[in-house]
Amino acid sequence: MGSAHAFCIAEGGVEGMCLTAVCDINSERMAPIIKKYPNINTYTDYNALLDSDVADAVIIAVPHPLHSEIAIKALISGHHVMLEKPVDISVSKVKKLNQVAEKSGMVFGIMFNQRTNPLYKKAREIVKSGALGELKRTVWIITNWYRTQSYYNSGDWRATWSGEGGGVLLNQAPHNLDLWQWICGMPQSVTAFCDIAKYHNIEVEDDATLITRYKNGAVGTFITSTGEYPGTNRLEISGTLGKIVLENETLKWWKLKTDEREVCSTSTESFTKIDTEYTELTVDEPETAHRGILQNFTNAILNGEELIAKGEDGIFELILSNAAYLSSWSANKEIELPFDCDEFDKKLSELSKNAKKCINHPKSSSTTGYRERWKVQW
Amino acid sequence: MGSAHAFCIAEGGVEGMCLTAVCDINSERMAPIIKKYPNINTYTDYNALLDSDVADAVIIAVPHPLHSEIAIKALISGHHVMLEKPVDISVSKVKKLNQVAEKSGMVFGIMFNQRTNPLYKKAREIVKSGALGELKRTVWIITNWYRTQSYYNSGDWRATWSGEGGGVLLNQAPHNLDLWQWICGMPQSVTAFCDIAKYHNIEVEDDATLITRYKNGAVGTFITSTGEYPGTNRLEISGTLGKIVLENETLKWWKLKTDEREVCSTSTESFTKIDTEYTELTVDEPETAHRGILQNFTNAILNGEELIAKGEDGIFELILSNAAYLSSWSANKEIELPFDCDEFDKKLSELSKNAKKCINHPKSSSTTGYRERWKVQW
Repeated sequence: MGSAHAFCIAEGGVEGMCLTAVCDINSERMAPIIKKYPNINTYTDYNALLDSDVADAVIIAVPHPLHSEIAIKALISGHHVMLEKPVDISVSKVKKLNQVAEKSGMVFGIMFNQRTNPLYKKAREIVKSGALGELKRTVWIITNWYRTQSYYNSGDWRATWSGEGGGVLLNQAPHNLDLWQWICGMPQSVTAFCDIAKYHNIEVEDDATLITRYKNGAVGTFITSTGEYPGTNRLEISGTLGKIVLENETLKWWKLKTDEREVCSTSTESFTKIDTEYTELTVDEPETAHRGILQNFTNAILNGEELIAKGEDGIFELILSNAAYLSSWSANKEIELPFDCDEFDKKLSELSKNAKKCINHPKSSSTTGYRERWKVQW
Repeated sequence: MGSAHAFCIAEGGVEGMCLTAVCDINSERMAPIIKKYPNINTYTDYNALLDSDVADAVIIAVPHPLHSEIAIKALISGHHVMLEKPVDISVSKVKKLNQVAEKSGMVFGIMFNQRTNPLYKKAREIVKSGALGELKRTVWIITNWYRTQSYYNSGDWRATWSGEGGGVLLNQAPHNLDLWQWICGMPQSVTAFCDIAKYHNIEVEDDATLITRYKNGAVGTFITSTGEYPGTNRLEISGTLGKIVLENETLKWWKLKTDEREVCSTSTESFTKIDTEYTELTVDEPETAHRGILQNFTNAILNGEELIAKGEDGIFELILSNAAYLSSWSANKEIELPFDCDEFDKKLSELSKNAKKCINHPKSSSTTGYRERWKVQW
């Protein structure tokens, strides 16, 4: 992922941003970029990079458990930070990061590239504007994160408690969990059903169903997996003024002409129909994805443009997945938010210690550019 | 409902069946049919009807808690029985009914009229034939059972623990719960989140989410409500050989050319695509609905035709809804099947006793024919 960002910048993909240095503990991984851009500074220790005067901003793309530690050092040493998702693996660590970020005065963004998708932006606009009324229900079936065993074998940190801090909820679904809370807001509780190694030989979950409860009583359902083919990507949000469904690159919108709550209490008919205006919206602008997030980050630094995804927002989807793990570790108990971070950290630490040691899988090769599959898949 | 069946038969809607008698404790309700067919025998006590020699078969359409009691008497007295859904409100009562039915030698059917829908029949055929492979997941969002407060006010037995034995899971969703188990089979456990009086002034739930677990580890999600508009009717079933989705009167079928389990373990690619054959099936025969079930019942009596919905099958969907209530009464605990019937009956009895007495709402008017809305709504 880091290599893809490096090539994007080096090739002039982000106006106002230039690549001055790369850093990797494994120098072999830097070979492709050095070969093409021999004047780039290279480091194998990120502290050395931060101590130098080589960069105004850094992009952090390392195993998840190192995210907040490196981000904190980068912010304190006066660097703007773009952090890969998820923000880290434990909410307690992210609280510290957010405190540092707030005091630092630096620009802090997170790579929630799917926030640039026009349909999700439109869904958010509809919900936030009140056009759907009060939230009643939301259901997201997001099971098109299919992965083979070969994927999990491609890096020895993958799909381990110590290396990634979780499975599909920590690695693939963060985009969706973030979009979900970005569009519908945060719930008050999470109940989860996580299945460990259901479809793959891994340590963590590759299938999860979450039930969330919002302040007004609305219920959310979130279903994800890396073991289904072909998967589904369908988000439904129902409110007192109608319903939206996002599927197959289309946003369907049923807009009621009268609030359902009013119809329910005043209608003299047992079975009534409510006048509805139906609209279908398709994509009318490109999903700028990673490049869009990097451009926005650059504009934020240079011109104070508002961030599409503030780094501080990273905590929200992590609260959902941490709470989901806590629930599944506690016989599917409903976990009220905010949850007990100490309890979570203790259990995660136990799992990390007790986990079987990873086999030394071959490292994945460096990536020289963005992949289409990193955009929203419908 | 009883009136609608009576008119259907009296008008010759069912070949081989004729209407000889009607029975209602409220004689006013029989007025419309007597007016049109003055020679019909009438009763206000069903025992008198059963003791007479007036009928070979009876259709029972009374408040749910009376179903098994009347059905048992009808079977013992030598009548073939067509019972309205749900079969009763407690599984313990239905066990007794099924024992009696088995010994009776009479034809015993249940009004699961949605089993006549060609798309559900096709879905069942696909799953049962093994064409989807092993079940991985099933999700049914069936929230298009919209009801106004006026509906609930239309009968004082409606939406009460003592009168109906439950809410949307007992009255509306039985069709879907039955189809779900008919197509996918019965799960091994049920966890449920039921919301009482969320959208209406009633005693029971009008919103429910069930998580079911099947023998092979597959997970099911069932979401229903009478408070959303416009609702959704979307059934998804995912297996090792592909996926089917039923929505908008269409069955979409993605059929994999190679079993996903084989691809997962043998592919050397991390992100792979599996060759898929896609088919869309629409309705090619009518949904015969109630009339179809009655015709089949008649043919079963006269010619031994196999029943579309055996009365004994009524217990399955009731096991799901009873277990769902037990779960929601027990802090959303996972209820293993078979569940403890005594515990369920005790809790239901307490709720029935403690429930607030119903206001004497106006009775609903008699229905003179089948309604389109009783067919599957997409």
